[in-house]
Order: sequence, then C-alpha cells, then structure tokens
Amino acid sequence: MSIATRCASLAELCKLIGANIYGDPDVSISGIATLELATKNDLSFFSNRKYHQYLADTQAAIVILQADDVEQCPTNAIVTEEPYLAYAKIAAYLTNNNSLQSYIASSAVIADDVKIGDNVTIGANVVIHSGVKIADKVTIQAGCVIGEQVRIEDSSFLYPNVSIYPNVSIGQHVIIHSGAVLGSDGFGIANEQGQWIKVPQLGSVIVGNHVEIGANTTIDRGAIEDTIIEDGVKLDNLIQIAHNVHIGENTVMAGCVGVAGSASIGKNCAIGGGAGILGHLNITDNVHITATSLVTKSISKPGIYSSGTPLEESQKWHKNFIRFKQLDCMARRLTQLEKQHKIREE
Amino acid sequence: MSIATRCASLAELCKLIGANIYGDPDVSISGIATLELATKNDLSFFSNRKYHQYLADTQAAIVILQADDVEQCPTNAIVTEEPYLAYAKIAAYLTNNNSLQSYIASSAVIADDVKIGDNVTIGANVVIHSGVKIADKVTIQAGCVIGEQVRIEDSSFLYPNVSIYPNVSIGQHVIIHSGAVLGSDGFGIANEQGQWIKVPQLGSVIVGNHVEIGANTTIDRGAIEDTIIEDGVKLDNLIQIAHNVHIGENTVMAGCVGVAGSASIGKNCAIGGGAGILGHLNITDNVHITATSLVTKSISKPGIYSSGTPLEESQKWHKNFIRFKQLDCMARRLTQLEKQHKIREE
Amino acid sequence: MSIATRCASLAELCKLIGANIYGDPDVSISGIATLELATKNDLSFFSNRKYHQYLADTQAAIVILQADDVEQCPTNAIVTEEPYLAYAKIAAYLTNNNSLQSYIASSAVIADDVKIGDNVTIGANVVIHSGVKIADKVTIQAGCVIGEQVRIEDSSFLYPNVSIYPNVSIGQHVIIHSGAVLGSDGFGIANEQGQWIKVPQLGSVIVGNHVEIGANTTIDRGAIEDTIIEDGVKLDNLIQIAHNVHIGENTVMAGCVGVAGSASIGKNCAIGGGAGILGHLNITDNVHITATSLVTKSISKPGIYSSGTPLEESQKWHKNFIRFKQLDCMARRLTQLEKQHKIREE
Repeated sequence: MSIATRCASLAELCKLIGANIYGDPDVSISGIATLELATKNDLSFFSNRKYHQYLADTQAAIVILQADDVEQCPTNAIVTEEPYLAYAKIAAYLTNNNSLQSYIASSAVIADDVKIGDNVTIGANVVIHSGVKIADKVTIQAGCVIGEQVRIEDSSFLYPNVSIYPNVSIGQHVIIHSGAVLGSDGFGIANEQGQWIKVPQLGSVIVGNHVEIGANTTIDRGAIEDTIIEDGVKLDNLIQIAHNVHIGENTVMAGCVGVAGSASIGKNCAIGGGAGILGHLNITDNVHITATSLVTKSISKPGIYSSGTPLEESQKWHKNFIRFKQLDCMARRLTQLEKQHKIREE
Repeated sequence: MSIATRCASLAELCKLIGANIYGDPDVSISGIATLELATKNDLSFFSNRKYHQYLADTQAAIVILQADDVEQCPTNAIVTEEPYLAYAKIAAYLTNNNSLQSYIASSAVIADDVKIGDNVTIGANVVIHSGVKIADKVTIQAGCVIGEQVRIEDSSFLYPNVSIYPNVSIGQHVIIHSGAVLGSDGFGIANEQGQWIKVPQLGSVIVGNHVEIGANTTIDRGAIEDTIIEDGVKLDNLIQIAHNVHIGENTVMAGCVGVAGSASIGKNCAIGGGAGILGHLNITDNVHITATSLVTKSISKPGIYSSGTPLEESQKWHKNFIRFKQLDCMARRLTQLEKQHKIREE
Repeated sequence: MSIATRCASLAELCKLIGANIYGDPDVSISGIATLELATKNDLSFFSNRKYHQYLADTQAAIVILQADDVEQCPTNAIVTEEPYLAYAKIAAYLTNNNSLQSYIASSAVIADDVKIGDNVTIGANVVIHSGVKIADKVTIQAGCVIGEQVRIEDSSFLYPNVSIYPNVSIGQHVIIHSGAVLGSDGFGIANEQGQWIKVPQLGSVIVGNHVEIGANTTIDRGAIEDTIIEDGVKLDNLIQIAHNVHIGENTVMAGCVGVAGSASIGKNCAIGGGAGILGHLNITDNVHITATSLVTKSISKPGIYSSGTPLEESQKWHKNFIRFKQLDCMARRLTQLEKQHKIREE
C-alpha cells in the first residue's frame, strides 16, 4: 500500500532537511510506502534494523537512510544521520494541506462573549461556553464541548468529541484526540463515619505548548493548585493523569499509563505502556520506566527501571507463582543452611 | 428479575436451534431469567457448573441444558450439547425487534455527497463528513462523528458518541459501543535534540465483518500501513490498540488490554483483561494470555501463557516482595552450597 | 495560587462544622490556598504530615488543623479532629454557587414523552430519548445522550458527552464525569465452531444515590440480572465494570481498575489504581487491594491485600526477573539440600 502525496524531487527533499543527495537529484516521488511495499513512485525510509531484509530489494524511488547503509541501497537516497526524524519532517511536508478553508459551523452553539481569533475552524455541533478565548488558527472538530473561561492558544487542534471542563488552559500547537477529557474533578474524598464526602476540586489544568494528548486520555483538574503538563509532553491513549500531577517538558507516556495524585515527573522521561505511578512521589529527569512497571517510591537517579515477572506457559508459571509466597521463607532457610555449613567447616 | 420477551413454545425454540424437546412441546414462555430467579413463565439455562445448586429447585418453565442434566431438571427442557450457545441464539430470537423504523434525524449534520443506503438510521446530532459511504441497514446513534471518506458496510451499528476518523473502513455487522475511537493518530514521535517531532500517521484502520468493539476502546490508525482488525474479532471496553497492529480472525480481548505498535496477533487467541502486549512481536494462532500478563517476546507455540505473582495479605506479601530483589543472589548462593556439598560428599 | 471564594469569618466557618475557634473570630478569608502558597486573605488546611514544613511559616489567615498542631500554627485556626473532612465541607460551602439559573437549551433534542422535573438544566445538543424520566434539580451538560426509559433521580449531575444506554437507572446526587458510558453491552460471547456468537445483554445498570463515576469510566449492563452500584460508591477515571458486577456501599476505586463479570465486591472496600478483579468471585466488606494487584480468588477476610514485585534498576531487575522461572526448581533444590544435610547430621 502506498500513501499518495504531492510530488517532490530528491533535490527538493534533501534541501528541506539539509541532507545529502545520493543518486539522481531530479527523480521525484508522489507517494510514501514501506521498504517492502514501495513501488517506483514512492519514498521510503530505513531506520529500524528489523526491516533490513527489505532494503536490498526495495522498489522505492527514494529511501531515507544513514550513510553506512548507502552501499546496500539499490536506488536513490536521502542520506542523513537520523532517518526517522528526517522521515517525520518530509512526511509532514508532503502531506500537509494548508489549503483547507477555516469555517465556523452553523450548528455550533457558541456563547455570545466567546472571543475567536482568525482562521479558526469550529465543527458541527461544537458547544463553546461563556468566557472562552480561542486564538488564531485553532481547530475544534465536531462534538467537542468547551467549558466556561477555557483558553486555547494558537494553532491547537481538537479532534471530535473532546470534553474540556471550565478554566482549563491549553497552549499553542497542542493536539487533543477524540474522547479525551481535560479538567474533570480529581478523586478527592474525605471519610465521615464511613461515608465519603466530596472534596471540591478548585484547581485547573494547564497544558503547555506542543503537547499531544491521546484518545480517551483523562487529565483531572487540581484540588487547589493546578495539574500541569509542560511543553512538549506527549501522552498516548487511555492514560489517566490524576489531580495535581506535574509532568515535565518532553516527557512521553505510552498507552494505559496511570499517574496518581500529586506525583511529580521530571523532564525527558519515558513511561512505558500500562505503567503505574503512585501518588505524592517525585521522579527526576531522564527516567525510563518499562511497560506495566509500578513505581512505589520516588526516583532520584536517572536510569531505566522495571518491575514484574516473565511470561511463561501457564503450567510452568503456576509452579513458580505459588512459590513466590515462600520466597521469604526460602531466603531464611538458605541463610540457615549456609550458617550450618560454615559451622561444620570450622 | 425477569426480562420480558415475546412468547414462544418449547417446540418452536427447539426447532429454531435443532435441539431435542424434553417435556411438553406446547408449554410457552414470555420471559428470561436465571435459574435462581425464574418464575413459571420464564426460560432459563444451565451452562456454568457454579450454578448447579439452583437447577433442582428452579421455577422456570423451560431450561436449556445438556442431556446429562435432564434427570435433575424439574421442568421442561431444551436439550443441546452447548446450552450457552443455544441460549445466545434463543435470547436473540426472543428479544430481537426488527420492527424498529429507520429514520434520519433532522438534527444530524450530513455532508451533501454522503451516500446512504436503504433502511439506514442516523440519530440526533450525528455529524457525517464529506465522502462517506454508508451501506444498507446501518444504524448510527446520536452524537457520533464520522470523518471524511469513511466506509461503513451493511448492518453495522454504532452506539452514541463514537468517533471515527477519516478514511477508516468498517465491515458488515460490526457493533461499536459508545465512546470508542477508531483511527486516532498512532503514537509516532521522533526525537530532535531532546524535543519530540510528530511523525504523520498516514495509514488507516480496517475493521472486518462481525467485529464488536467495546465502550471507550481506542484503535489507532497505522503509520503507513493500516491497523487491521479481522473478521469476528471481539474487543471489550477500554482496550488500546496501537498503530499497525494486526489482530487475526475470531480473536477476543477482555477489558483494559493494551497492544503496542506493530504487534501481530493470530487467529482464535484470547487475551485476558488488563494484559499487555509489547510492540513489533508476533503471537501465533490459538494463544491464550491470562489476565494482566505482559507479553514481552513473540510466541510461536499455541498454549496458555501467564506472568505475575499471587495476591496475599499485604504484610506477608511485603516480605516476599522485598526478597524478589535477592532472587538472583539466592540462586547463586544455592548453587554454591550445592557445589560445596558435592565436594564434601566426594 | 489562590482560589477566590466568597468571604467568610473564622466564627462563621467554625460554627458551620462545629469546630473550635483559635484566634480572632472576626478575621475573614476570601480565598483558599495551600499552606505554602497562601496569602493573608486565604484559608488553608493541614492534614497530610508531608506538608508539616509549611505550617510554621504559612501566611494564611486561617488554617484548619488538629488540636495538637495549634501550638505550631502562626495564625488563626479552625480546630477539629478531622481537618481534611472539615476542609471538604468548608470548601464546598465557600464555593457552592446556588444562584445558577436552570435552563433547557434550544438545541437539545428531547423526545415528546420525556418527563422533566423542576429546576432541571439540559445543555446544548443533549439528546434524550423516549420514555426518560428526569427528576428535580438534575443537570445534564452538553453533548450527553440519554437512552430510552432511563431514570435520573433528584440532583444528579452529568458532565458533557456522557452516554447512558436504555433502561439504566441513576439515583439521587449522582455525579457522572465526561465520556463515561453506562449500560454498554457486557462482553458475552458463545463459541460456535470457532466463531463467536453474541449473547444478548438483557439486564441493565442500577446506580444508587451519592455515587460518583469518573471520566471515561465504563459500566456494562447485566446479561440477565442487573449490574449494581450501591449508594456512596466512588469510581475514579477509566475504570471498567463488567456485566453483573455488584459493588457494595461506600466502596471506592482509584483510576484504571478493571472488574470482570459477575464479581461481587463488598461494602467499604478500597481498590487501588490499576488493580484487577477476576470474574465470578466474592470480596467481603472492608477489603483494601493495593495498586495494580490482581485478585484471582474470593476474599472472605477483611484486610489489605497485594501482589506484584518491586521496582528496580532494569539491569538488576532483569537478573531477578529471569530467576523467577527457576523459583520452583530452587525451592526443590533447597529442600533436597536440607534433607541431605539432616541425613549427614544424623
């Protein structure tokens, strides 16, 4: 399968990203495909070594790759140190459609005092409440609901059916996918003789610039202070960010992560899919948590951290699973044997 | 509690599914209930051995069961090898309401060039963008948003507030529950000196026939190739399917599963609730992963696989939990003791 | 940061909750802030010992705290045994805005036979189907879809884009956050020669009074009996409740919990974030499950339960992770050594 794009020559694409030309500068492409499936009008790229087998036989017109791989490339190439990054930029360039006309749908329900910038698109059945400010070039797709006093800065993009609670602040170039909820109440409850009393959630959510928030991800508003998502944070789908969480710049989280209340996560962290982070703890910058690990204490040293046990055939696993309950006992027995052994040796 | 249904006789129901009559062919029911709560006008079924205690005293008019259990049944019976399957078919027959009139709500916002088949129902405030094709007998309930160029084949059913991104293709007899999102961008990012650059997600999502997708489940579009959900796949609620995942025919997943990018899962697999599957790996056909297990490597052999540790009272658990960090050390000490022991024996 | 509130004096607030006055009864506040950030017009509270360092230097006008801490408080105080509970009540009192006018949006699509009580607010683009009954003082915010025959009792509040399937029953003073789905089909499938046949889900969902349901949480309808959420239950975001689950009074669940079909959970339980509960099992009252634990068997004794392994630096973890597969073997070898040792001793 090939994705149709607008036409571009090898020379044009190399110039765009400052890469070296290998081959015919005038050769041009009009589509994007994988190495394996590319045809003679396609651009492709080689960055994951897993797909090395497909390089030698690719039918692509142009391949983005590193200098070391040029020798094995049977066709024209864009030579760069970071092929995946180069691909990201070139693909955006080839598929970006700036000609889309902005519009405000007649079925949108917009309060009288909403301030709307230039070149804003507001889709069908969008609801925008009082006091909202929407900056230039923002797109809000069908079915989104924007609460009172929300701010959305330049060039941000909301896909359909996003819900933004009142007072939430969204930066520039933010992308929010369908079904995401920003600003829902944090899970604050106080016990009164067995019954739970709701603690009002009075803070908000502040989202920085260039943040991306995945489909059906939820970000709760703070209890008193705000929940803060700093610039460049990328959140995948179905992530839960509790109240008063602080996520530092350029930190990324894969799908299904849960972060409990008041956790503070540093910059440039990577949190693997399904991982959990307990509340009221600090994770320093440059920490990598692997998938489905649970963070139960603060982490003050950058590095890669994990928890969990290996997958096995269930019958074998079950034998080890049961033994886990004896682990402390086994450790004591082992120590005991060592002592006895030592006594006899002496 | 009893669910009211239309009336049917024992003979009629046995004929419907090709089962044997036990008792009075003319006895009829007008409701469905569990063995325990059924009254004299109800149909019930016995398939889970856990509920055996309720069979002997059930007040049901008719019970669906296996031949071996007829002796213990105090009332009329539908005798079949697979009572649960028979129940599924009979319950559908008794409660199916084909008399519902199709309609297109006046509040729906539908682009001029959308092609709509016969007997299509489109609910209030649905938004359907340009280029969409909707086949016969499709139902799209209130608040759904259907992106440009989407295809929805015969007899598919979308519950309220579903979001479908552009170019997604949905087969026949597909059921999609509320809040589900199909076609959101995959989590593709490339690092440029500490900052994350978005990689355009140019593929789509292809959903086969007879697929069911649970509430608030998310399925990302492919990066270049498509994300593929084959015929007969059943996905429960709050599942995350990342870009370029391939799920084979008749595979089922319970709630809260997360599947990372480019994972390929075979046919007839069963993935337990909360399980995780890492990216770029292959799982063969007929694999069963138990709940909350994490799959970190490809699986080439059918079977049941698990990971994880047993639940214990926290005080006891904590002692074993701590010892886990010593496990490698314990193994070495054990080997050392064995060696010393052997030396002494010799 | 300080949250603006209406003005209140120390005397007024102490009277409201029956607390003791410490300081000047006439001092008044007009905002709420944390101990650390409060200024001279703010109310604050001290309940989490982690923030003890901020008490001595707080600039707050009034602090809610326990009698033992009065000595260290540099300002006026509301003295009570349970400061967090007192704060919950006072914050609600200070920020509650009863002056909001109820309204029914002209863009809402409401079936002719819907019964609507007094002082009901129905937001823009809400869709309410036939046979629904909505009691007094209910609020249904923009974009919600309410299925046929749904009941919503007094003073319940639905945030935007909630989906309620037909026949669901919602009690009084219930709060449902955006994107939540109530009444979606349970995951009932029966296998017929490799293909999955849908089992009709004929039950419903019954939600008691004073329940709170988090953003994007899903609660499936029962297969025949109903799924039941009793009074006072509090569910955080992104929780999956499967069909026929029963959750007892005042039980709370943190985000991302998954509960499988027909599980029955007692009263006053607390289920930590990301925990899983398998199907067809019973958990008694007053059970606490810690975060990401998996419950695989019924629990008949109140207490705290856990599963899982500790987080470590990945290199160290991996050594222990691998050894987990040898755990049963290690246990046997240890027993063998002990036996040999004993023989020699004799």
